[in-house]
Amino acid sequence: MANDTNRSSATNERRRSASRPDEAYDPRGKRHQIGWQQLLANIDRQKGSLHDQLVHTFTKAIEDGRLAGGLRVPSGRELARMVGIGRNTAALALSDLVQRGYMTARERSGVYVAAGLERPSTRKPLSDVGTALDWNSRFGVDVLSIAAPTRRPVTEAPHINFLHGQFDAGLFPTGHWRECERAASSVLEIAEWGRDKFDGDDLALIECLRKHILPSFGIWANMDEVIVTLGGQEARYLVGYLLCRPNIVVGVEDPGMPDMVSVLRLTGASMRPLCLDEEGLVIAGEMQDCDIVVTTCGHQCPTTAVMSLARRQALLDTARSNDFLLVEDTYETELVSDGDLPSLKGLDTEGRVIHLGSLSKLLAPGLRVGYVVAPAPVIRQLRELRRLIHRHPPGNNQRALAMFIERGYHRAYMQRVERELLQRSEQLRQCLRERIPDFEVRHHLCAASFWVTAPSGISAKELAAVAAQRGVLIEPGDRFFHGRRDVSCFRMSVSSVSEHQIETGVRLLADAAQSLRARARSGKHTASSGPIE
Amino acid sequence: MANDTNRSSATNERRRSASRPDEAYDPRGKRHQIGWQQLLANIDRQKGSLHDQLVHTFTKAIEDGRLAGGLRVPSGRELARMVGIGRNTAALALSDLVQRGYMTARERSGVYVAAGLERPSTRKPLSDVGTALDWNSRFGVDVLSIAAPTRRPVTEAPHINFLHGQFDAGLFPTGHWRECERAASSVLEIAEWGRDKFDGDDLALIECLRKHILPSFGIWANMDEVIVTLGGQEARYLVGYLLCRPNIVVGVEDPGMPDMVSVLRLTGASMRPLCLDEEGLVIAGEMQDCDIVVTTCGHQCPTTAVMSLARRQALLDTARSNDFLLVEDTYETELVSDGDLPSLKGLDTEGRVIHLGSLSKLLAPGLRVGYVVAPAPVIRQLRELRRLIHRHPPGNNQRALAMFIERGYHRAYMQRVERELLQRSEQLRQCLRERIPDFEVRHHLCAASFWVTAPSGISAKELAAVAAQRGVLIEPGDRFFHGRRDVSCFRMSVSSVSEHQIETGVRLLADAAQSLRARARSGKHTASSGPIE
Repeated sequence: MANDTNRSSATNERRRSASRPDEAYDPRGKRHQIGWQQLLANIDRQKGSLHDQLVHTFTKAIEDGRLAGGLRVPSGRELARMVGIGRNTAALALSDLVQRGYMTARERSGVYVAAGLERPSTRKPLSDVGTALDWNSRFGVDVLSIAAPTRRPVTEAPHINFLHGQFDAGLFPTGHWRECERAASSVLEIAEWGRDKFDGDDLALIECLRKHILPSFGIWANMDEVIVTLGGQEARYLVGYLLCRPNIVVGVEDPGMPDMVSVLRLTGASMRPLCLDEEGLVIAGEMQDCDIVVTTCGHQCPTTAVMSLARRQALLDTARSNDFLLVEDTYETELVSDGDLPSLKGLDTEGRVIHLGSLSKLLAPGLRVGYVVAPAPVIRQLRELRRLIHRHPPGNNQRALAMFIERGYHRAYMQRVERELLQRSEQLRQCLRERIPDFEVRHHLCAASFWVTAPSGISAKELAAVAAQRGVLIEPGDRFFHGRRDVSCFRMSVSSVSEHQIETGVRLLADAAQSLRARARSGKHTASSGPIE
Repeated sequence: MANDTNRSSATNERRRSASRPDEAYDPRGKRHQIGWQQLLANIDRQKGSLHDQLVHTFTKAIEDGRLAGGLRVPSGRELARMVGIGRNTAALALSDLVQRGYMTARERSGVYVAAGLERPSTRKPLSDVGTALDWNSRFGVDVLSIAAPTRRPVTEAPHINFLHGQFDAGLFPTGHWRECERAASSVLEIAEWGRDKFDGDDLALIECLRKHILPSFGIWANMDEVIVTLGGQEARYLVGYLLCRPNIVVGVEDPGMPDMVSVLRLTGASMRPLCLDEEGLVIAGEMQDCDIVVTTCGHQCPTTAVMSLARRQALLDTARSNDFLLVEDTYETELVSDGDLPSLKGLDTEGRVIHLGSLSKLLAPGLRVGYVVAPAPVIRQLRELRRLIHRHPPGNNQRALAMFIERGYHRAYMQRVERELLQRSEQLRQCLRERIPDFEVRHHLCAASFWVTAPSGISAKELAAVAAQRGVLIEPGDRFFHGRRDVSCFRMSVSSVSEHQIETGVRLLADAAQSLRARARSGKHTASSGPIE
């Protein structure tokens, strides 16, 4: 190991020195020094040419990606001081690296790691020596094998995107959001949200939920009956974790929400798939020995069925007589209202329903804000659980969102989105009827997504793959079913497609279906795995 | 139930109407209507005077806190339309409620629920009818009984606050943070972070961690070896969840971090308390059958001991020969450096160490940003687990923080905090030596907190209680010990106390100790429960 002279000197001087925030990160800083010393820890005069060792160590670290492109490298003089070698040796090694293209010299600025040289295939775990551990034998749980496959984010531009829940930046109320963010960044506000609140939330946001959001679901909740979560998904996780264990039987909709099912799988609970009809969940004998029934009664995911008031009442009655709990996932009802019906929680007279909601699906999924409404003893446990997981959702976002709601921007935005989605839905419905009249389309007036069934013989997975090649993204339905069978249903949503793209999108989809049928007639098949799963 | 005429009319008109964001939430809105209908669902002409029923329902909902103070109430005319009663009946009921002080009328604005009338003691679960469920029998896990008690946030002003990790709003770089938040709220940036990234993070933040933060711990990590978490606590939770299960043996420092221990308890892992000396964790035989050893070797929590380089190497050697994993929690080393030593992860040549860090403890704990550095197979599992829990930390904060680091503000702020904490530490050290010379003080030069042991016979819990009465907050040490015994050690920190308060704070603490001793001599004892646990 190179020597470590000068390591602890000049500490106080540096500490007293004025900070220069306008300067980029300084590789000479004491904290960075440790990094360079560690990188070059194996340089050793006894092992041969210092020059060759330096060049080799740097090229290797650049190729295996550990030294990031654009990283500023210390000067030869600084490097020499840090690792205890001669100035000339260090300077020559760096200049050699520049000449070979591994580093670039910027005038009056210094030497930087060149970009784009990473070759991950050559990489070993973190170091030259030692062996990689067998990690699979060390995981207490194999999350990758338990979780349902996720839809990866789609970023490539040229697609017409009918996937659900994707963000439409064009609708985002940039001005209003920035105003609230700015208001939440005043010195006084920061003093409030900057604190670690342990198991607490921003009371202003809870108050906004109580006054302005929950009543629209027919819910009047107390302060101690609401907790803020990181989007609807954390609401699912916290409630699943708290209530489920291996001997608990949970009734779930089939087809239903894949990420709810994955959470339940993690807990080891037994799942009982429950049937659906055009009013959503069917009240049936299989519910009788359930401990918990999970439902997306507002808009059933993925079929968009809206549960009638009579069915909601019957479900509550069945829950009471069989003494099971109800978990109500509002799913996309925050996007567009569900026919002016009170939620299950709004109708709940016993505190038997746990209500999960999301605010950020409407605003921007990247913001991650959701909530749970439940009896106070449940919320107390959820707060403690959330404290152990991550304390609380970031305070600045809670405060900014509270202002966004309080100032009426949320309501105005909600109306705008609803109007926009209704127009798009109407257009998609017409296009589907015209272009692919033999496809069965299920869609509730107020839903942002459509549940479409292709004529038998067409696999939704294959259709999605062919459509993607033509630039149209749809979501095959297999991930919603418990058996994960190859199905002919798929989901299309208007949540992020613009109105003028809809007609083209459906035309291309119809072409894709046409070509699949032609292929089927000629006996050929494409691979069944599409790029969107 | 009152009738539901007019429910579905005028929908399109509302949808087309211009949005008025400057107006507060409108109780006449269709969405709110459901709330009022639900609230008054049991009003029934057959049951007697409608007036009395209306007044009773409102007063009850206001007293039990479901109708929040400040909530706008529909006018009598609107109410009448919504629930299908006469206009006069509704108007008279509201005016009666105003007269009785349950509501207030604001000129040209409407009628609002009066504030401060909540009487939680009278409250029943959500409704008049039905019985509360026995929730304790329905929890799969009793988190409240598993978790170590938390320190509640202290907000009362007059205290001199020596608790650790509290936010010092006076140090927060408001201008720089606002600049980055603003930059992160441009239309282009929002299009980027507004998306649901599923299991992903903001690549700009990962890049900043790799280039500017991790090297100061001697770590050069690849893109796929880092994940962003919601503060250090989520790093602990994710890693604990992934690696631990009931038959796993985890060695933990005693005394050690209570919230790490709580996470391990949740997983059901067996815990083995490990001894400490002035260099932190002692390498001993008890480690041999551990599967995992968790250490805060940078600054041991709570004793502030810094593990020497030789001890770090020896720990890595022991881990290799006994094949256990090491989880390194940087704890407060992001506040002030730990004597310029590389972290365990920096010295790790096998990929055996999992490194947990926090960024928001320095900046503002309420922001909740931390990270895990680990071999790629571990990060893959953690990403999937995090996706099931809540997807990812909010995108806007990740983007703003990346800018904050990239522009050098983080480094500048870190230097400022370090300078400030060193000055405060020096002063606290002197004051303790002068005022309570018979207390044993352990403090590493660079640590923000002190581990103090009172002379035998003084209980830290009692001392904290008496000191709190005099306006000084310290943290008794019992929560750090596995046996939770009443101890004479306590923690004092300079992280949120201002320099001019330190002398007064220590003087009051000395007075408290004096009065405890006097009481002990006269044979009296105070109650042992302090207000800070």
